[in-house]
Amino acid sequence: MYKTDLEIAQACKMQNISEVAKRIEIEEDDLEHYGKYKAKLSLDILKKRESQPDGKLILVTAINPTKAGEGKSTTTVGLGDALNRINKKTVIALREPSLGPVFGLKGGAAGGGYAQVVPMEDLNLHFTGDMHAITTANNLISACIDNHIHQGNELQIDLEKITWKRCLDMNDRALRQIEVGLGPKSNGVERKDGFNITVASEVMAVLCLSTSLMDLKQRLGSMLIAYNTAGEPLYVRDLKIEGALAMVMKDAVKPNLVQTLEHNPVIVHGGPFANIAHGCNSILATKTALKLGDYVVTEAGFGADLGAEKFLDIKCRFAGLKPNAVVIVATIRALKQHGGVAFDDLKQENVEAMLNGCANLAKHIDTVKHFGLPYVVAINEFVSDTAAEVMALENWCEENHHPMALSQVWEKGGAGGIALAEKIVEVCEQPNQYHPIYEVEASIEDKIAVIAKTCYGAAHVEYSELAKAQIATYNRLGWNKTPICMAKTPTSLTDQDKIYGAPKDFTITVREFRPSLGAGFIVALTGNVLTMPGLPKAPAALKMDIDEAGNIKGLF
Amino acid sequence: MYKTDLEIAQACKMQNISEVAKRIEIEEDDLEHYGKYKAKLSLDILKKRESQPDGKLILVTAINPTKAGEGKSTTTVGLGDALNRINKKTVIALREPSLGPVFGLKGGAAGGGYAQVVPMEDLNLHFTGDMHAITTANNLISACIDNHIHQGNELQIDLEKITWKRCLDMNDRALRQIEVGLGPKSNGVERKDGFNITVASEVMAVLCLSTSLMDLKQRLGSMLIAYNTAGEPLYVRDLKIEGALAMVMKDAVKPNLVQTLEHNPVIVHGGPFANIAHGCNSILATKTALKLGDYVVTEAGFGADLGAEKFLDIKCRFAGLKPNAVVIVATIRALKQHGGVAFDDLKQENVEAMLNGCANLAKHIDTVKHFGLPYVVAINEFVSDTAAEVMALENWCEENHHPMALSQVWEKGGAGGIALAEKIVEVCEQPNQYHPIYEVEASIEDKIAVIAKTCYGAAHVEYSELAKAQIATYNRLGWNKTPICMAKTPTSLTDQDKIYGAPKDFTITVREFRPSLGAGFIVALTGNVLTMPGLPKAPAALKMDIDEAGNIKGLF
Repeated sequence: MYKTDLEIAQACKMQNISEVAKRIEIEEDDLEHYGKYKAKLSLDILKKRESQPDGKLILVTAINPTKAGEGKSTTTVGLGDALNRINKKTVIALREPSLGPVFGLKGGAAGGGYAQVVPMEDLNLHFTGDMHAITTANNLISACIDNHIHQGNELQIDLEKITWKRCLDMNDRALRQIEVGLGPKSNGVERKDGFNITVASEVMAVLCLSTSLMDLKQRLGSMLIAYNTAGEPLYVRDLKIEGALAMVMKDAVKPNLVQTLEHNPVIVHGGPFANIAHGCNSILATKTALKLGDYVVTEAGFGADLGAEKFLDIKCRFAGLKPNAVVIVATIRALKQHGGVAFDDLKQENVEAMLNGCANLAKHIDTVKHFGLPYVVAINEFVSDTAAEVMALENWCEENHHPMALSQVWEKGGAGGIALAEKIVEVCEQPNQYHPIYEVEASIEDKIAVIAKTCYGAAHVEYSELAKAQIATYNRLGWNKTPICMAKTPTSLTDQDKIYGAPKDFTITVREFRPSLGAGFIVALTGNVLTMPGLPKAPAALKMDIDEAGNIKGLF
Repeated sequence: MYKTDLEIAQACKMQNISEVAKRIEIEEDDLEHYGKYKAKLSLDILKKRESQPDGKLILVTAINPTKAGEGKSTTTVGLGDALNRINKKTVIALREPSLGPVFGLKGGAAGGGYAQVVPMEDLNLHFTGDMHAITTANNLISACIDNHIHQGNELQIDLEKITWKRCLDMNDRALRQIEVGLGPKSNGVERKDGFNITVASEVMAVLCLSTSLMDLKQRLGSMLIAYNTAGEPLYVRDLKIEGALAMVMKDAVKPNLVQTLEHNPVIVHGGPFANIAHGCNSILATKTALKLGDYVVTEAGFGADLGAEKFLDIKCRFAGLKPNAVVIVATIRALKQHGGVAFDDLKQENVEAMLNGCANLAKHIDTVKHFGLPYVVAINEFVSDTAAEVMALENWCEENHHPMALSQVWEKGGAGGIALAEKIVEVCEQPNQYHPIYEVEASIEDKIAVIAKTCYGAAHVEYSELAKAQIATYNRLGWNKTPICMAKTPTSLTDQDKIYGAPKDFTITVREFRPSLGAGFIVALTGNVLTMPGLPKAPAALKMDIDEAGNIKGLF
């Protein structure tokens, strides 16, 4: 009955990207075209407008994601379209999708229904090559590490303590743990290694947190690669290849411009993993968007416990950004799942379960308030929602004084987001007291305690012996004065996968740390974090095809 | 004293690629811009001009390459510029450089001196992403093979007989032999694997031999991936992912347009390894060029024994191309090395050694004649060449009735190639009897014997026991009716690295075969062929840098 996302996207008569750019006053000279519908934006756009005021910054976040889906990207795109419809010059700033998952379960998308970014096919395939540049930079480091060892190992790299991994933009579980350098001596030195998916590479996090090409080079040089046999850290700069890496990234550092189905400008740039990295698009993209639009709508990965927290504690802190409002997306289906309903029963009306599930939404609202920011709850409507459920949720919001709007952007595009847009404009006018929730100068333990208690509702934080030893080391090396990047399951406020709703009195266990010194944060791992996904039994790739005219099928 | 290639390239005031395209009557609608100076060409250009006559096709080949350098790409570019200078509408068709070697010894280039292709930096970095698309397609196959095994191995793939390897566009010896799938069961099944450099992937050969997007899909599906436990071959199509692969390659299949320093059009597309593949740019690029130019100058990898043979026996046969003339490039330095002079002594005048070295040149001339084609010997002049050497070489050519021209394109650009251009125009007017030197229907042994005797001057061909067994298998499977792609050292007419000049009465030993069934040829390996290079002790990457304005250093 419904058209697929790909069918809707393909039916769109896109505007030449020059037209889209012109409407936000980008000069043709600051565009680098990649075909007719994509362009890279010169970093000069930002420089030229340095003294101009920024637009208003709106973050779209969500409750803890469930299999039921919450529609955060869809809401972000639809809200941007709706704001443009009510004559607010709005630019949307999104993450770039990773190619790996496209061949797996996902099929690919950027938004959904009538709230999508196009050209959808290109966005989900090679786009403007940013991912490939990151893959190349990441693997040049690995090749130079192994070559350095093979050529005599002057830096005395400890083969057991190489922290840098190779990467590919592919879901490929067989590469998680590998052994390299097998065979004759001319094949280099044998050692254990592994591949991350490209979006989990620190190079991606660095790209997204850099404020200029020179900052990028400096950060690339600061990335930790290994320890030497004396136990001292070694950095990319010790290999003397940060110049080559920055050169490899010279185009990737430039934000990309595309359009929504309604021809509104979307800047899509960078897509770091939301667990071992911070999960938001690039600082350069957001800053550029803020110079081009009176309103900028952006999103962060996962729920507010992870995505919004990192956006507000890491990205905004590093970039000096002052957000104006937060949209918290929820669906009635997902709230029912948080309220205890099994996935297969979500289609049945269940007001009580939904209201129970609102505890999860309430916790994320509470988190946003802690950052001193105003918010609007956006209910992303599904055809299966019943009138009784919708009314109960509206009442719940009203009773608790939560500004709320229904959103039908999936079905109606921007027209379905007018109510949300109007509410957001209103909320953006409120003065706000945005502030990160911890000081970087605080101890690692104190910073984690603040995050766990404020954003998760945890009572305690425990540390493994390894984690304690790492804290001692980091304190000695002076690595402790950085923000913390929490890696935690996105599906629960706790560090356990399937505990829905809003649990209380639980303990968060930090298992291990990983220093991302180029990105400028310390990753705290709770539970296992998989940095290389696998393909499912029937990969989406099997359904994909292309005909003689170049029409694509199966990128649903 | 002399400027570096990069300095010369950077000093060039490039024309917008639309201007370059306009001069060969490409409509703006058939261009897909990648920045201001690169564009992809629509395959429609070829379709629209199907009924138009082709331009004249000139192949540039060389003597066996030595460390002294012969300047084949430089001559190709310079000849193209020179032909345009004498008002012959000429398009140059070249291979795409691989990124891996750029970080190693090579630094990167496309031509040299004043006969170069620009933008040199982009060409040597990510260009329009073709290499990355090939890497992705190649590795999607690997991920699907390992996933298929992990999910139950319905096809009964024999883990010991997986012929498909992963790839990266990187010089990384540590990846030559690896073990994948280590660790817990959830990481897939343990097995031995290895990475090729991307240009050695069969996907690259397939791209270069495809005549349309649908032909590409069919060829990708025909690639051999493994044998099952019953010993029967398995193909990509058994994984049902040829549609996804063709989709991944949808832009990579389109030729790329750039320009020379003199703003003449250059189509750069595809760059298969010249050993385990056929070493020429894509059929689609060459065919498109032939519709756009009255003259097309192209090149093939290594010397005439390998590159020209494969161009004339594989590419032209598959594409139905009729070349008009061949340029055989030599330098006095390289001829002296073939004549027995050590590399360090090449600067000293040595007429006798040079004349001895002419035996190598004579053999390649002989090869070209066997294909029924007229030729011109191009002497690529070096500042160290003495007047006596030049005169002796001119006399040798005259005495042996070899059309010859001196070329100074490295120093003077197109102006230094006028004599060569005029001679080529003259030679192109001659009727020719071009024909491949063997019939595909002949036996594998007969085809190899013809190549070894005609193009190498070998007396005998021997086969290892493995090779003999493979021939029997291929005969049974019907894989024997394809062209042969010889993998042999490029530095000698024999299969031994350091035997220069033109040896006689030697034996070629075929060690092993590899079926490239998607590309449509059987590779015959003589000696060891390395399909993944390594980095040197001081990689070129260490000298590379970029400044705030984006200016690159160290891509020499």
